[in-house]
Amino acid sequence: MKRIGMLTSGGDCQALNAAMRGVVKTLAHSGEAVEIYGFLDGYKGLIYGNFQMLNGKDFSGILTKGGTILGSSRTPFKTIREPDENGLDKVDAMKQNYFKLRLDVLVVLGGNGSHKTANLLREEGLNIVTLPKTIDNDLWGTDMTFGFQSAVDIATECIDCIHTTAASHGRVFIVEVMGHKVGWLTLNAGMAGGADIILLPEIPYDIKKVVQKIEEREKNGSKFTIIAVAEGAISKETAKLSKKDQKKRAEESKYPSVSYEVADEIFKRTGREVRVTVPGHTQRGGSPCPYDRVFASRLGAEAGKLILKGEYGFMVGYRNREIVKVPLDEVAGKLKYLDPKSTIIEEAKLLGISFGD
Amino acid sequence: MKRIGMLTSGGDCQALNAAMRGVVKTLAHSGEAVEIYGFLDGYKGLIYGNFQMLNGKDFSGILTKGGTILGSSRTPFKTIREPDENGLDKVDAMKQNYFKLRLDVLVVLGGNGSHKTANLLREEGLNIVTLPKTIDNDLWGTDMTFGFQSAVDIATECIDCIHTTAASHGRVFIVEVMGHKVGWLTLNAGMAGGADIILLPEIPYDIKKVVQKIEEREKNGSKFTIIAVAEGAISKETAKLSKKDQKKRAEESKYPSVSYEVADEIFKRTGREVRVTVPGHTQRGGSPCPYDRVFASRLGAEAGKLILKGEYGFMVGYRNREIVKVPLDEVAGKLKYLDPKSTIIEEAKLLGISFGD
Amino acid sequence: MKRIGMLTSGGDCQALNAAMRGVVKTLAHSGEAVEIYGFLDGYKGLIYGNFQMLNGKDFSGILTKGGTILGSSRTPFKTIREPDENGLDKVDAMKQNYFKLRLDVLVVLGGNGSHKTANLLREEGLNIVTLPKTIDNDLWGTDMTFGFQSAVDIATECIDCIHTTAASHGRVFIVEVMGHKVGWLTLNAGMAGGADIILLPEIPYDIKKVVQKIEEREKNGSKFTIIAVAEGAISKETAKLSKKDQKKRAEESKYPSVSYEVADEIFKRTGREVRVTVPGHTQRGGSPCPYDRVFASRLGAEAGKLILKGEYGFMVGYRNREIVKVPLDEVAGKLKYLDPKSTIIEEAKLLGISFGD
Amino acid sequence: MKRIGMLTSGGDCQALNAAMRGVVKTLAHSGEAVEIYGFLDGYKGLIYGNFQMLNGKDFSGILTKGGTILGSSRTPFKTIREPDENGLDKVDAMKQNYFKLRLDVLVVLGGNGSHKTANLLREEGLNIVTLPKTIDNDLWGTDMTFGFQSAVDIATECIDCIHTTAASHGRVFIVEVMGHKVGWLTLNAGMAGGADIILLPEIPYDIKKVVQKIEEREKNGSKFTIIAVAEGAISKETAKLSKKDQKKRAEESKYPSVSYEVADEIFKRTGREVRVTVPGHTQRGGSPCPYDRVFASRLGAEAGKLILKGEYGFMVGYRNREIVKVPLDEVAGKLKYLDPKSTIIEEAKLLGISFGD
Repeated sequence: MKRIGMLTSGGDCQALNAAMRGVVKTLAHSGEAVEIYGFLDGYKGLIYGNFQMLNGKDFSGILTKGGTILGSSRTPFKTIREPDENGLDKVDAMKQNYFKLRLDVLVVLGGNGSHKTANLLREEGLNIVTLPKTIDNDLWGTDMTFGFQSAVDIATECIDCIHTTAASHGRVFIVEVMGHKVGWLTLNAGMAGGADIILLPEIPYDIKKVVQKIEEREKNGSKFTIIAVAEGAISKETAKLSKKDQKKRAEESKYPSVSYEVADEIFKRTGREVRVTVPGHTQRGGSPCPYDRVFASRLGAEAGKLILKGEYGFMVGYRNREIVKVPLDEVAGKLKYLDPKSTIIEEAKLLGISFGD
Repeated sequence: MKRIGMLTSGGDCQALNAAMRGVVKTLAHSGEAVEIYGFLDGYKGLIYGNFQMLNGKDFSGILTKGGTILGSSRTPFKTIREPDENGLDKVDAMKQNYFKLRLDVLVVLGGNGSHKTANLLREEGLNIVTLPKTIDNDLWGTDMTFGFQSAVDIATECIDCIHTTAASHGRVFIVEVMGHKVGWLTLNAGMAGGADIILLPEIPYDIKKVVQKIEEREKNGSKFTIIAVAEGAISKETAKLSKKDQKKRAEESKYPSVSYEVADEIFKRTGREVRVTVPGHTQRGGSPCPYDRVFASRLGAEAGKLILKGEYGFMVGYRNREIVKVPLDEVAGKLKYLDPKSTIIEEAKLLGISFGD
Repeated sequence: MKRIGMLTSGGDCQALNAAMRGVVKTLAHSGEAVEIYGFLDGYKGLIYGNFQMLNGKDFSGILTKGGTILGSSRTPFKTIREPDENGLDKVDAMKQNYFKLRLDVLVVLGGNGSHKTANLLREEGLNIVTLPKTIDNDLWGTDMTFGFQSAVDIATECIDCIHTTAASHGRVFIVEVMGHKVGWLTLNAGMAGGADIILLPEIPYDIKKVVQKIEEREKNGSKFTIIAVAEGAISKETAKLSKKDQKKRAEESKYPSVSYEVADEIFKRTGREVRVTVPGHTQRGGSPCPYDRVFASRLGAEAGKLILKGEYGFMVGYRNREIVKVPLDEVAGKLKYLDPKSTIIEEAKLLGISFGD
Repeated sequence: MKRIGMLTSGGDCQALNAAMRGVVKTLAHSGEAVEIYGFLDGYKGLIYGNFQMLNGKDFSGILTKGGTILGSSRTPFKTIREPDENGLDKVDAMKQNYFKLRLDVLVVLGGNGSHKTANLLREEGLNIVTLPKTIDNDLWGTDMTFGFQSAVDIATECIDCIHTTAASHGRVFIVEVMGHKVGWLTLNAGMAGGADIILLPEIPYDIKKVVQKIEEREKNGSKFTIIAVAEGAISKETAKLSKKDQKKRAEESKYPSVSYEVADEIFKRTGREVRVTVPGHTQRGGSPCPYDRVFASRLGAEAGKLILKGEYGFMVGYRNREIVKVPLDEVAGKLKYLDPKSTIIEEAKLLGISFGD
């Protein structure tokens, strides 16, 4: 008999349920008896021993459902080493609950922060298997994460809608796409939506180049311009500051986000009113796209196989079109950035897209 | 031979192209010779004589296209009686261009502001036929406007996406829906998306009632709450102010919009972090929904019939499931508000929705 | 305390769950104690006493879910007066179960056949309230049924997809839309999808007119033609036969459906290969569109109000934009056909659509 | 100056326009003067010298448009070596037109058949660059083709719709997915849609195993079963026949397609009525999904680069997440089948899917 803990951690995304269903179906298929402890609201559930016993039925019919049936939270992440308000040591508490329940393994579905914690728990002696969940596609060790393509679809649909209104009014429009540190989502949605300018965290922009592109388009008869801006887009000047000064600058900014700053700068330089649209959390929500459903199900199945074989300490990832197991200590603490010199950036430029660089 | 001017005015919306196609197809079908003068960017094109000659081919294949092939603008609207920067009298200019081109009729697709101008031009002796375009559904004289149902669809999809993430994180979420003066769009999207609280311009809210609903839900085991807030939602206190003081208050507000104020008030009272999502202009964009395609096509066909019969001075509207012609001076200058005592509001309350009143 | 039976009968459609949720939320909101008996798989559940006790939680979160949580079937319909295979009298069995459970009312969500049975049960002394469910929009006594607009959306999306491939290959395409007896669905989807020819049960077609339209289009430079054909479309010759002979003809036909016959006739007359697409049951499935969610919720709320007031023997319908109660004996046994001389048909013709008449 | 011929051949699919736009934007970006000859309706246009001169404007705004602005056809394919009805040698005609127009290169967007012809033209001395277009994803030499993911999305949406109706009625449903020779599309749509049984050309099925799965599901409390059947699914008995006998059997079959045969066999063995849905050509149509837009744009850009460098005789493909050039003679005449022993099939089985084997 296997006793399996499971939790979903960090910002939710599409296909978390599909992935968990994949794990559970694979275990069920093996014929081995299993008990599934679903910890509620991420690591918080493990810390405070808050869980539900789940069985196959609970995972039936959830392939297409957005969100996570276990709930999620960002707790504890950065404060993991600090005691909680009652003085409880969080890592200790998680270990105790794991061992008290005599779990064979803890399955963690999460992004970067969650993988740091997962690796820490591994170091503390817990058996861990993880699955790469994030709309940002920035997890180290895997070419793809689930949630990403669904988020691309939603952000693209948003740009598509803006396209018709931008063209009708001859306006400049900014669509702010999620992604504080990496630009995969913005780049793909921007390319798919036919954005004219794409501003990414990895390629600091020069506002003069942005304006130049808008004016070039006008000269060529295009009355409108669509700009896809990542939440973490950064100007060349700001990029030169120390991280500390960047943070200070952001805190003191009068703009709700960088998109509004870009809009204002364009207005000041050209007199053009610029509209900003922020799809925000919609990018994490709704039913997963078919790609993510298949992908997350496959990863879940492979996680199930690892559990059955007793191979722990791995993230199930995807590399060169093969599903692979990646040691957790390789994954934790690293981010998969977009290389400004990568082929896809070069191609985007050939397609006429400006990155403001 | 008929010489027909056509323009789309005000904020763009879905099915403008479908409606124009309806007019043109009907004229073509009649066998009568027509010349179509498409004025660019709304009344601006008429003021400055900026137009394109169009034929049937130009209207082929645009049934499903969002936006408007003629472009649109909000010019001149409020400043219609003021001369432009070169001292040009706008109304005079429009009249002159109309008569210089020897037009038989001007077809105007627009919302409230555009209908005021259309009626003014009618008073000045122009032959006018109009079509009711707006995502707000607030035009007097018609039960329905085209663009409305498409906007409901997009705003609902947005709430659907937010639902999964709200449920996963146990959070309070606000979705800000378009509508400064009337609440049709927010009400319908809110009901369709299963919002728990809906705040509308026509029903001033009491923030204490809003908080009470959130806490009631929590007591009943619902960890999350979705609030649909119209851009023009207003608190009971603010509603008591004079229009002038309301405007002053809005200008001095530190919040980008009322949604953020509601979010902050909830946070202050309950400690709950509230996320705000603003789909914004996406609500005007994209391909029209099937309902709007059929509806706009029908209205366009009826406008074509009026033109062929030489019946001018009307908006083609929809009342009690019949397409009717409504005298322009009945339409201009009035808004179709949502009645707080209407059946649909009562039903929404029976469904458990709070309006914060 | 109210004891309420509920069942969904006939072909399923979108927004059945939304409507039931509306009823139950309204009852819950009243504060009156209720017991809800959900009969499974339509009248079958009532005949055999197969039911589940349901509470508010069961109806939570189902606003957006397609299908019906109670299951549905077409039993007994035409055989209602015949005993079942064990000699059980079905009407008697339904009465007995109704009275044995001491129900105050039976809520029936159904279409034409289901309304006949509902009215029969009313005549037998049961308290009945019904809701108009059908993708066909053919129920007498109401301007609109829920499920209809969702089906229009799906059928239109299908035509949209076919449009691009038809245009690319310069082909004639038939999309077969649901509707054996009435053409509302085909007409609306056809108009929304830009079909060039629409064949309906209410307007018998002449294949020569169909061919003529295709050839006319070719002369005018359109290489492709889209035909929306209702399942029950009928040629002028067939329409002249007696119902009995029509049935015989259909049974002996070598074509799976009339679409294939139309395709073959076009091929024989023009040498053009015609492709047939049959979206079939997809038209009944998936999440209800926002229009249907709001509409079904409103009808459900009004049904709840009738129950609370003890007003029985009605279908909750929609007329002239008002929700009304319609006596069941007015509804039962009638079909709401499309009038070939109605305004919408005239408008469709002005838009250039041929009905082959 | 470069003189570039371009054509789209075979069944149309999504993102053909996006790919052509990618080529043309890249050429425009290079600054080199180009003349673009767009041959109409595939190779047919090249044979008969039927083309249009195109410029950048023609490729603007088509990123999101389904179909192909050049038109497509399956001509000549199998009859390429036969003279046409006027005795014209097709290969000769293509060569002559190519050289008469002094083309530098011919860009071909096509699938398997089109690649055979492309390679033949290469052997005849034409400069060729090709792009891998097909919803089947069966082209040799590339991990992915454009059109595939869009088709998966549509077929999945179809299964999603069927899911709600199947569950409501407790029925067995078959969705017939495109794919005569390979099962990639059916496998992915089936997995994404949560099909219980998937029948593929590469894995001959035993109808007894299919029935067994349906009954197993019923025993476990699932009243319904969804079966995704590829057009080219084949039973174990049929698979044992020679190709010739298989063809004969198909021609003599009373069923329109294998799906109907499977449905009938299930009915005969279990008495269950089985419904068949055939989305058909909708799978090729509509706006490309974001994945395909990005992917096709990238391939187009790389084709543009090859042209600028004068590297001819290649298909631009995608392998191990890198865009590569694949010699045409490696591609032509081969099919990329799904390996029944591949990981994805194993994973699908772990997820509980039966392949009837």
